[in-house]
Amino acid sequence: MLSRLPQTVYLSADDVIRLVRRVGLPNCIAGVAERIERDFLRWSEFDKSARVACHSRDGVIELMPIADSREFAFKYVNGHPKNTRAGLPTVMAFGVLADVDTGAPRLLSELTLTTAIRTAAMSAVAARTLARPECRVMALIGNGAQSEFQAIAFRDLVGIHTVRLYDVDPSATAKLVANLVDQRLDVVVCNSAAEATQGADIVTTVTADKTNATILTPDMIGPGMHINAVGGDCPGKTELHADILTRSNVFVEYEPQTRIEGDIQQMAPDFPVTELWQVLSAKAPGRKDAAEITVFDSVGFALEDYSALTFIRDTAAKLGIGDIVQLIPEPADPKNLFGVLGIEATDAKLEAFA
Amino acid sequence: MLSRLPQTVYLSADDVIRLVRRVGLPNCIAGVAERIERDFLRWSEFDKSARVACHSRDGVIELMPIADSREFAFKYVNGHPKNTRAGLPTVMAFGVLADVDTGAPRLLSELTLTTAIRTAAMSAVAARTLARPECRVMALIGNGAQSEFQAIAFRDLVGIHTVRLYDVDPSATAKLVANLVDQRLDVVVCNSAAEATQGADIVTTVTADKTNATILTPDMIGPGMHINAVGGDCPGKTELHADILTRSNVFVEYEPQTRIEGDIQQMAPDFPVTELWQVLSAKAPGRKDAAEITVFDSVGFALEDYSALTFIRDTAAKLGIGDIVQLIPEPADPKNLFGVLGIEATDAKLEAFA
Repeated sequence: MLSRLPQTVYLSADDVIRLVRRVGLPNCIAGVAERIERDFLRWSEFDKSARVACHSRDGVIELMPIADSREFAFKYVNGHPKNTRAGLPTVMAFGVLADVDTGAPRLLSELTLTTAIRTAAMSAVAARTLARPECRVMALIGNGAQSEFQAIAFRDLVGIHTVRLYDVDPSATAKLVANLVDQRLDVVVCNSAAEATQGADIVTTVTADKTNATILTPDMIGPGMHINAVGGDCPGKTELHADILTRSNVFVEYEPQTRIEGDIQQMAPDFPVTELWQVLSAKAPGRKDAAEITVFDSVGFALEDYSALTFIRDTAAKLGIGDIVQLIPEPADPKNLFGVLGIEATDAKLEAFA
Repeated sequence: MLSRLPQTVYLSADDVIRLVRRVGLPNCIAGVAERIERDFLRWSEFDKSARVACHSRDGVIELMPIADSREFAFKYVNGHPKNTRAGLPTVMAFGVLADVDTGAPRLLSELTLTTAIRTAAMSAVAARTLARPECRVMALIGNGAQSEFQAIAFRDLVGIHTVRLYDVDPSATAKLVANLVDQRLDVVVCNSAAEATQGADIVTTVTADKTNATILTPDMIGPGMHINAVGGDCPGKTELHADILTRSNVFVEYEPQTRIEGDIQQMAPDFPVTELWQVLSAKAPGRKDAAEITVFDSVGFALEDYSALTFIRDTAAKLGIGDIVQLIPEPADPKNLFGVLGIEATDAKLEAFA
């Protein structure tokens, strides 16, 4: 990685699976959470922009760039809820780290598994900052690919000991229950979102439908609750009833992006929100009292992927995981790109192409 | 590539060099030019946006997304003029093609060499459309990594038989002269940009300095000339004196992007320009008469990379070039991403991480 040659380290999906197996998922979640907190504390050092989204009938494809003075990062990620019917993941992602001073790409990594880890880490960092310290019970509504990561992150970083599960697809809940065996969590399967929220200190919604769904209604929300709204993350895709937002103290990652994509897309453009980095750096208050309802309207911001990419890169280097790929040609003279072809390339060769 | 599994074809820099050697550079340029023309004729079918640029002191890193109803494409590309001093290319690029209906990435390819091919193809398509048919002499100002590709594209697609060369770096010109031996082109080395433009029918500027340079001044421009301005391609980076634009008929790729990045960034926001696709599809006139000066204010648009990526993908498939990479994990149950880790991943394993 220190080479001046434009070589790129490649971490495949299998490489990152191996990395997480060796380090342990709890340590990966904790490690990414630590990076996220550290990077959110230097918020002003980053060149930030709302992600670029390409919407189609069944889903969205997004590019999420960000940079500080040394490194440029971006993630490619899709969201296609119908994919699971075809045996494909709803969310697939990969990402790149590049040198700002030369533009050379230095890391190409899978980010599907890593996105689940960083999203859970981000949710737990926000809850640790905003929820009441004594929170122990979490409703987990939406039991798909991200749910185990949320449960383990909240167990380790927030102190949750009981999860109350609900999903419109019972087989998803059964899968989650099976995966949480031996995870030192009390697991309660519920028959509705309303039942799941009963007695919960924290409510996490991580549903996938690309609609203006109303997963949570005001009657489900009690004083002092913290709501971790993860699934409402693009235009036309929300999870919370507007009245919940009206009566809550709402926190976001990056306001310009969340206004477009988050649950607050339902609210007026001047609906008050606080960016989480301000609370982490003591520039703004978080929860005001034990009775206040706090909402983390999470959509997923490029900085979290930068944090995850740097964690994965540094950990892979430590463990000797990854290969070198030659994404960029290496002409002997950088002004002589043509030279890499050799003169024979300039013959017509119509037959070879016909 | 027809698999429903999220497998991705990977074309390395060496793969694409081998592809171009086998097909022949002239055929690759002609093949990409054909795709560009075809895709520009279905302009309205594409979801278009100006590229996202991250500017730093010495350069820029850009993401260039575009999609039609079937395929999403993006290119990562940098521009760092100082790189050549460190032995790195000024421009390095790679790109991806993905399925719009699932978001699955299907192709990851080098685009450094391919960008030089597509830029030359785009320039030649524009000149073939806008320049006088009898053009035979081209000034080529800026003799860096892109210059050979421009010379060969204009020879084959426009009918240029003489190139008049100038670069502030004489070694760059010497490199270009050496590379053009046996290229069926009369080559004239000039001592200034002004000398290079003498007797030229077409003037191509492909310089790299990230400044508001004035490579061409009005005194160098005669009636009937076509100016192919390639190097002025980001904010603060221009090549033409404003008076040249004022007296010319100016054509662009995608107006919203060129207003920010092109030579017309010097002009008022309402300075009249025509998008080239309109001329190609006979929706707008091109050159009005033999005396008119036409300018193609080229900055490089994502659609050209889509055209190049589909050409490279289809040609590589035909030749059996490329490997499969596993960028995306393949859980047996797409809702059970956690399952790919195996339960052992959920142990703490602090020692392994310490």
